Amino acid sequence: MVDAVLFEFLHTEMVAELWAHDSDLDPGPGGQKTSLLVLEGMGFRVGQALGERLPREMLAFREELDVLKFLCKDLWGAVFQKQMDSLRTNHQGTYVLQDSSFPLLVRMGSGLQYLEEAPKFLAFTCGLLRGTLSTLGIKSLVTASVAALPACKFQVVIQRS
Amino acid sequence: MVDAVLFEFLHTEMVAELWAHDSDLDPGPGGQKTSLLVLEGMGFRVGQALGERLPREMLAFREELDVLKFLCKDLWGAVFQKQMDSLRTNHQGTYVLQDSSFPLLVRMGSGLQYLEEAPKFLAFTCGLLRGTLSTLGIKSLVTASVAALPACKFQVVIQRS
Repeated sequence: MVDAVLFEFLHTEMVAELWAHDSDLDPGPGGQKTSLLVLEGMGFRVGQALGERLPREMLAFREELDVLKFLCKDLWGAVFQKQMDSLRTNHQGTYVLQDSSFPLLVRMGSGLQYLEEAPKFLAFTCGLLRGTLSTLGIKSLVTASVAALPACKFQVVIQRS
Repeated sequence: MVDAVLFEFLHTEMVAELWAHDSDLDPGPGGQKTSLLVLEGMGFRVGQALGERLPREMLAFREELDVLKFLCKDLWGAVFQKQMDSLRTNHQGTYVLQDSSFPLLVRMGSGLQYLEEAPKFLAFTCGLLRGTLSTLGIKSLVTASVAALPACKFQVVIQRS
């Protein structure tokens, strides 16, 4: 269906546009860092807004692990039409979510030379996870890493207050 | 469902981000014009890409009017989960598509003072229509106008070569 890929196309355009913009302002690593922060911030606000649209019963999760499972299944399903492939935790507030074929990386080539391009395709989604968690009452830090394209891992570290 | 509003939230963030960006570079009407062009361009490329994903039989439209009807029904349905409210034509290559409650304008206030804000919420969609038409082999100019929020009209003028 057309709507399943709309988000993906729009995300691609957004990354390209921000990259072009910030390279104009600052062609060095500073400009790239700004773009990553901007993308993460956009993802955060979209995640917050999506979180507010979740059915009420979702907001009554008692266990942190249930919230993370919800992200892996329902949030991933809504945004990427698939589920996260695995979820691991050290039971001390750190969760590793692995997607063995992350849709926003699938269109990239898989050679090593593309690895350095990967962060700009992950920043929005890190923000999306952090924003959704925030609306569900959980403060977190979310980072992403790629070892072999198009697989990637999102690491969620819960911030206890 | 969560996915129905994802596009809308992302669009809102994109408009806000581009506006902030271009006001930094050029706070006057020049900066706003650039943002509108950027949004229209992003819409165009997303429309082109969506157009390429349409089922083959769609690409075999014989009549121009069928293509326009397809935009009103299927494209609108995929992107906005509704249909366009009316389609008129002068049978000389000009089409007016009216949406009496355009989703990207619905969240805005409806007072006259918001009217001048409307163009930035329409530029992407003008591009989206132009891009989809382009993939379907039709060159066009697409503009939008608002008389009373949240209703708006998209005017499509076919460019004969």
